[in-house]
Formats: sequence, structure tokens, C-alpha cells
Amino acid sequence: MKLVRFESESGPRTGVVVGDGIIDLTKINAPYTEMMEIIVAGQLALAAIEEAIIDVEPHRQLSSTRLLAPIHRPGKFLAIGMNYKKHQEEAARLGVAEQAKQVWFNKQTSCISGPYDEIDPGVTEKLDYEVELGLVIGKPAKGVTKENARDHIFGYIVVNDVSARDWQFHTPTFTMGKSFDTHGPIGPWIVTADEVADPQNLNLYCRVNGDIRQSNNTSQMVHDIDSQIEYLSTAFTLESGDLIATGTPEGVGVAMVPSVFLQPGDIVNCEIDCIGSIENRVKG
Amino acid sequence: MKLVRFESESGPRTGVVVGDGIIDLTKINAPYTEMMEIIVAGQLALAAIEEAIIDVEPHRQLSSTRLLAPIHRPGKFLAIGMNYKKHQEEAARLGVAEQAKQVWFNKQTSCISGPYDEIDPGVTEKLDYEVELGLVIGKPAKGVTKENARDHIFGYIVVNDVSARDWQFHTPTFTMGKSFDTHGPIGPWIVTADEVADPQNLNLYCRVNGDIRQSNNTSQMVHDIDSQIEYLSTAFTLESGDLIATGTPEGVGVAMVPSVFLQPGDIVNCEIDCIGSIENRVKG
Repeated sequence: MKLVRFESESGPRTGVVVGDGIIDLTKINAPYTEMMEIIVAGQLALAAIEEAIIDVEPHRQLSSTRLLAPIHRPGKFLAIGMNYKKHQEEAARLGVAEQAKQVWFNKQTSCISGPYDEIDPGVTEKLDYEVELGLVIGKPAKGVTKENARDHIFGYIVVNDVSARDWQFHTPTFTMGKSFDTHGPIGPWIVTADEVADPQNLNLYCRVNGDIRQSNNTSQMVHDIDSQIEYLSTAFTLESGDLIATGTPEGVGVAMVPSVFLQPGDIVNCEIDCIGSIENRVKG
Repeated sequence: MKLVRFESESGPRTGVVVGDGIIDLTKINAPYTEMMEIIVAGQLALAAIEEAIIDVEPHRQLSSTRLLAPIHRPGKFLAIGMNYKKHQEEAARLGVAEQAKQVWFNKQTSCISGPYDEIDPGVTEKLDYEVELGLVIGKPAKGVTKENARDHIFGYIVVNDVSARDWQFHTPTFTMGKSFDTHGPIGPWIVTADEVADPQNLNLYCRVNGDIRQSNNTSQMVHDIDSQIEYLSTAFTLESGDLIATGTPEGVGVAMVPSVFLQPGDIVNCEIDCIGSIENRVKG
């Protein structure tokens, strides 16, 4: 199932994508109408929604609806750095040392924006893109082993881990340059885990004004999804709705020779097989 | 005003501390009854509560009430590293290089716990304490200059930035060792900004089993509170309820020679003049 949040005349709504339309969960006899409720209830909610949408005609066309970030304010928005081998290599050339352990940092949840919203450069002069497969945590995870990690994934999403490279490298913690307002476009919807046969074999792409900049496959991750969930959940609890960006492949602008950064008016498109595509214009 | 959250027979409640008692805001004619509502409404809410509590007798004794974390799930919980000169020096001895810029990292909001709750070591073997003055953001801050920073502080709180030193140093981002569940005790209440004449002149202390380990004054910060708000808000929006830990002074266990870490049964007390005191036992 593809779950969306969208703008309606009476505020944000949650819906199910069917073909090129959206079924509005508040307009049918669905027992769950809010994305976070659905994620918390998990299979129970999905089964109830499946039943409630049988024979229901979509209420809106996708093409004429403004989609919102499928998750508005998760408890956490974590992202892993240097998690594709060739991206490690390009990062090393920029002075970011390879680490033995998984390198995690936060994106502040206030940076989250919609799948087609504008990216505001703010004060950065080194605006860059990073396409990433995002996970949405379902059942809370604490002390979960690799073998059981998948039980805790509610679904998948496309993330553009937009980065202000000048501010990112103010300190080795990366914190300041990963969370400018609007620098976390996600979407276009959450694809529930049952629809993704193998999340470790998905092509992912980033295009700027139509030119391919990143093109790779999630099979090339250094630390796979299951290892990520194991490692994180050994330290702390991953809660329902937490968002995890699983790393970007090579091809980021800062690592081009010479570096090429995003400019006002640029169109950045991030796409992942089986998940979907988001597209964000740089403001200005 | 001192605002608390506490456990009642019918769930969490918000109240005002008066002497050694608590006025329960749900039991009087108060127009605001939830901490986050009060923070968002700011002066309006505080004035209304001031009026509503005139001549009201406390409903409970502080001593017989379990206090909860005054803020349960802020949007952000940010903390600054190496922000007292002598702590910079002890950190440098441990291999943490001094940085020109402010060093910010996240504590995951899921680590927040109450002012007298137990600290669970989890899988760390290097459990440590850090007393810090915490700020609670009131009016949202974006692009705020030092001169106007104070207008955005709703109040102050004691934070123990409990740290798992082994996991903290897995990577230079610190992320994994700063957020074990229960490693963010805060409280005991929020002291509203009007009651703190000079937040840059407060003594702060950390004691373990009664022995002083940290003793300093907020005047010794490298980057003062106003500079912190200016820097953060240049990059992204600080929202109402966001929690900011302003750094710890020297005296942490990992920097003692040899290092001394917290052990099961230890009692850790963090105290700040004019704000209050929190005390947490290490589980086990």
C-alpha cells in the first residue's frame, strides 16, 4: 500500500494511493485516519484500511493534489554517513576519514518538507543533494538482532538528505549543515514493507535539471539495513514513526572536480525503484 | 514561576510549584493545562496562570509526588560540546580536538527521563555524567541576533547529559553515546526566564554519592547562551519547546586520571543555583 499525506481544503489528510488517485481516509469508514496512528497500529491498521477501501473510488487526482511530507514530525530523523563504498572514497578525498563503525548523525525534524516543496538555500553557499532510501520504523525496536530487524520496518520512502557543505564541515559532528529548514524533502508516500520484495536491491538516482548525478543500487551499502537497525537499537529505542536515511552513493556535488553546488532554480529529482520519485526546485 | 509535570492517579499533569506544594492546573480555572501549550502561548499563558492561581492552595506536596520530565518530547534536544575552557582542555587530553566553531550534537528525544528516574547503563561500560544548564525555547527563533536572543528563551532547566563514553567515541559525530534510553534526565521543573536575573552567572554542581565532581559557574562558557541561539538560528528554526543543553564544565569521570565511571547504585546529583536539583540513581 502507498500511504500519502496531502493538503485538503480543511487541512492535512492521510490517504491511500490507488492508480493515479487518492482515497481520503477521513471520507470513508476507515478506523484510522492519521499517518502516525496507522504506523503505531501497524498490521492491524493496514488490514482494516485494506478492507475499508474495497470498491471505493478515489476522491482526488494525484496530479492536482499537493502532497505533504508523509511524516510530519517523527521522534527521530537519523542518517548514516559514508555508507556506499565509492562515496566513502570521494568523502575521503575531501578529508572525511573512513570509520570502522557506522557513522550516524541527526537531521533535525524541523527540516522535513514535502516531496515537491522548494529547497531554500538559506545562508549556505554550498548547497548539495543526497538521494537515500529512507526507512520508517513500525514496531519499536530495542536490542533487535539483524535477523529480526525487518519486523520493525513499517515502510520505505525517498529522502533527499540536502546538505549545506560549508556548515556541515564547521565541526566533525555535521549537525549544523544537515538540517537547514526545507533541507529534508521526503516522500512522495510511504510504501509499506510488504510491497518491497528486496530493499537491498533497488536502483536509486539523483538528477539535477535532468542530468544524472547519482546512480547506484542499495546492494552497494557498506552497512546493510538490518545491521543499521541492530546497531542503533543496541544503544537506544527506535520508536514508531522514526525515520532513518540509509546513506547516499557517490556522485554528490561537493565531490565533483571542481565542486558543483546547487543553484537557485535548479530542479533536483530523487528516485528509487519501487518507491517513487520526489522533485524539488531550489528557491530563488 | 516554576512549572512541573507530575504523575497523578489519572495520568500526567502540569502544575505550578508554590512553596513545597503543587497547584494542579487541571483542578483550577486555568486556561492552559499542558506544558507545551503554555510554552507556545508564552507570556499570555503565564499571565493567565498567575491570575488563576491567586489564593489557590496547593493540591499536593512536592515530597510525595513523582515528578516527570517537564518536557516530554521536544522537537529537538541539542547539546553543545567542549563549551567550558577547562573541559576543552580535559577533552583535548582524550583526543577530542578543539574546534573554532560551536560543536553541536543531538541527544535523541527518546532519552529524556524524569528528574529522579533511574539511569539505565544499558550496554555501556563507561557511563558518565555532565551537569548542564538547559534552555527551553519559547518564541520560535530563526535568524536571531545575539542582542535579541533572550526574547526566545521561555525558561531554564537542569540537564544531566549522561554519556556512554565508549559508544560516544565510536565516531566523531558522538551520536551513539549521547542518547541511551534514560540518559537524559531533566528537571526538576522549568523556571521561567523572568525568575533568572543572570543565566550567565549561575553556579552549577555535579555530585556522585555526595562527592563534588563538577563545580563551576555559567560565566565560564566559551560560547555564551546568546551566541548559541544566534548560531543555531542562523542555520535552522528553533521551535517552541526545543531543549538546548549549554555545555558542561570540567570534572567528568572519563577525564579523571585514571578514568572513573558511574557504577550500579551510584547516586548522581546535578544542581544549578536558582534552577534546582535533580538526582538519579544508576540502576543495578
